[in-house]
Amino acid sequence: MPTAVRRHIINNPHRVIDEALDGFALTYPELVTFNNEHNLISRKILTPGKVGLVSGGGSGHEPLHAGFVGSGMLDVAVCGAVFASPTADQVHAGTKLANTGAGVVQIIKNYTGDVLNFQIAASLADDDDAPVEQVLVDDDLASDNGNDGPGRRGTAAVVTVEKVCGALAERGADVSTIATRGRDVVARSRSLAIALDAGAHPGESSAAFELEPHQVEFGVGIHGERGIGRIAYAPADDLVEQLVTPLVNSLEVKRGQSVIAIVNGLGGAYPLELSIAARHVHNLLNGRGISVARSLAGTYVSSLNMHGLSVTLTVADDELVSLWDDTVRTAALTW
Amino acid sequence: MPTAVRRHIINNPHRVIDEALDGFALTYPELVTFNNEHNLISRKILTPGKVGLVSGGGSGHEPLHAGFVGSGMLDVAVCGAVFASPTADQVHAGTKLANTGAGVVQIIKNYTGDVLNFQIAASLADDDDAPVEQVLVDDDLASDNGNDGPGRRGTAAVVTVEKVCGALAERGADVSTIATRGRDVVARSRSLAIALDAGAHPGESSAAFELEPHQVEFGVGIHGERGIGRIAYAPADDLVEQLVTPLVNSLEVKRGQSVIAIVNGLGGAYPLELSIAARHVHNLLNGRGISVARSLAGTYVSSLNMHGLSVTLTVADDELVSLWDDTVRTAALTW
Repeated sequence: MPTAVRRHIINNPHRVIDEALDGFALTYPELVTFNNEHNLISRKILTPGKVGLVSGGGSGHEPLHAGFVGSGMLDVAVCGAVFASPTADQVHAGTKLANTGAGVVQIIKNYTGDVLNFQIAASLADDDDAPVEQVLVDDDLASDNGNDGPGRRGTAAVVTVEKVCGALAERGADVSTIATRGRDVVARSRSLAIALDAGAHPGESSAAFELEPHQVEFGVGIHGERGIGRIAYAPADDLVEQLVTPLVNSLEVKRGQSVIAIVNGLGGAYPLELSIAARHVHNLLNGRGISVARSLAGTYVSSLNMHGLSVTLTVADDELVSLWDDTVRTAALTW
Repeated sequence: MPTAVRRHIINNPHRVIDEALDGFALTYPELVTFNNEHNLISRKILTPGKVGLVSGGGSGHEPLHAGFVGSGMLDVAVCGAVFASPTADQVHAGTKLANTGAGVVQIIKNYTGDVLNFQIAASLADDDDAPVEQVLVDDDLASDNGNDGPGRRGTAAVVTVEKVCGALAERGADVSTIATRGRDVVARSRSLAIALDAGAHPGESSAAFELEPHQVEFGVGIHGERGIGRIAYAPADDLVEQLVTPLVNSLEVKRGQSVIAIVNGLGGAYPLELSIAARHVHNLLNGRGISVARSLAGTYVSSLNMHGLSVTLTVADDELVSLWDDTVRTAALTW
């Protein structure tokens, strides 16, 4: 399928992240501060004695992670280049900044570079006498190959993990309690994504892959990589069902249980499409006797301007919903 | 320039709005209710004795207007088909619903169909004994032809108007006070937009217009119409300056004054691009001695998936900033 030449509203492809983070901090001065030495977005005011929450990774997934810095969620977002892990130095600087005496929980999406650099940073921080624990998010069902390879990729469940861990930290929980609950949220969460068009890097004129008009890429990740296969382009409800059914099966969600559901745009899906998809997610789950305790539909973990969406389900319990409902005030999520 | 075949995640092009509104209400059950007879999104709980705020118009501009229904902003959004005015019957139903005893202020973007249908609805509501006043939003500088024709189009300043009028209504102001302040905000506001690619209607495979790779459409509206000219594709800072300079000149903003600025994505611009643009809006204004009292950067008033952005400036005063800062809780704007 022919793809239009993609252009971007940028100045210099090499300065995209620096300038965007600067602009982000200028837009939300009441929420965040920009450290341009290490490309950190941190909370305007850190709370002494609260466990610090740090996340980060490659950029190009906005509003993740900077959009989730603020009270009730992250303390520091460490921002790499587009689709590239931040360095261990950057993560170490972010971890030190987030530690106000009670230690730090790092929330990491499962990608080799991120895992490595966050681990190095955690050992350096341990040397600084800050207790650091890690929560590895690996929710993407499409990349589940049993015990082979690097394991499942981390995608939109990171939003649920950051929200729940953030609420626990505000409630005064310690590093170990927060990390344990974070890992529990990961275990309860799976995601699956489709795409109709791949995204294009800032400064690059073509998309990462091309599809024929009758094809939909199934099981895509958030870095422009191909999915695990192609399915037929079909009405939204059919596409959504092909995401929801494997998620419910994998998580073994039973009638009478409830879930938190995220319908996440990958960047190029407009709100009408996400709302139509959300409708069918609700209808399918309700039809199975599964109640949707809480849900989101919007662009939270994008892949540049990829035209597609993911569905994330997290099996809920009362405490999880209560933590979800706690006040949050960030650029991308506020209630 | 060749344009890729655009596909959409929808079921039936004729049911896009019904299904999307249903999905929207399922996603935000704590905020809104969906009336599917008239395609109204209304606040979950209307406040007796508070002036009702109603807006609406064609769809395809999401999150506008349904995304701004909630406490501190709209009571009812009346949703037409994509880029088509709701009928007078729909608007009348929305106006009746919003009237809990203190009357209604209608906020209308300046388009012939909307103006006509809201006017008919207002006279019908007058017959129902509800005092109704109207605020006509006409901020788009590109469509300023002096006294000729239908006047300036209404674009993203409608967000500022809805926020300020919403705050006044919560504070207990009457219909006349709210409408007068709303018109004052309009008079203080101007917008300008550019696009690198046009959007495509749900169910249609091609964009509304095509550009050569060296061209940027200048002065576009939010309905896929062409702008008032083409300018050269250039770095973001240059493009942003070509928006900000005419706005400052038209509003005659002086050194020492302050503004509320909205950097608004038209649907296809990703957050990195909007943050880079926001950075230069701040820098340009600060360089002129104009302070940015408050700002937003995000997708608020879109034109389907048009790849472009608009800048809206509103000359601020202390009361305006105070109204802006009042609590708001909607799907698209919360603080």
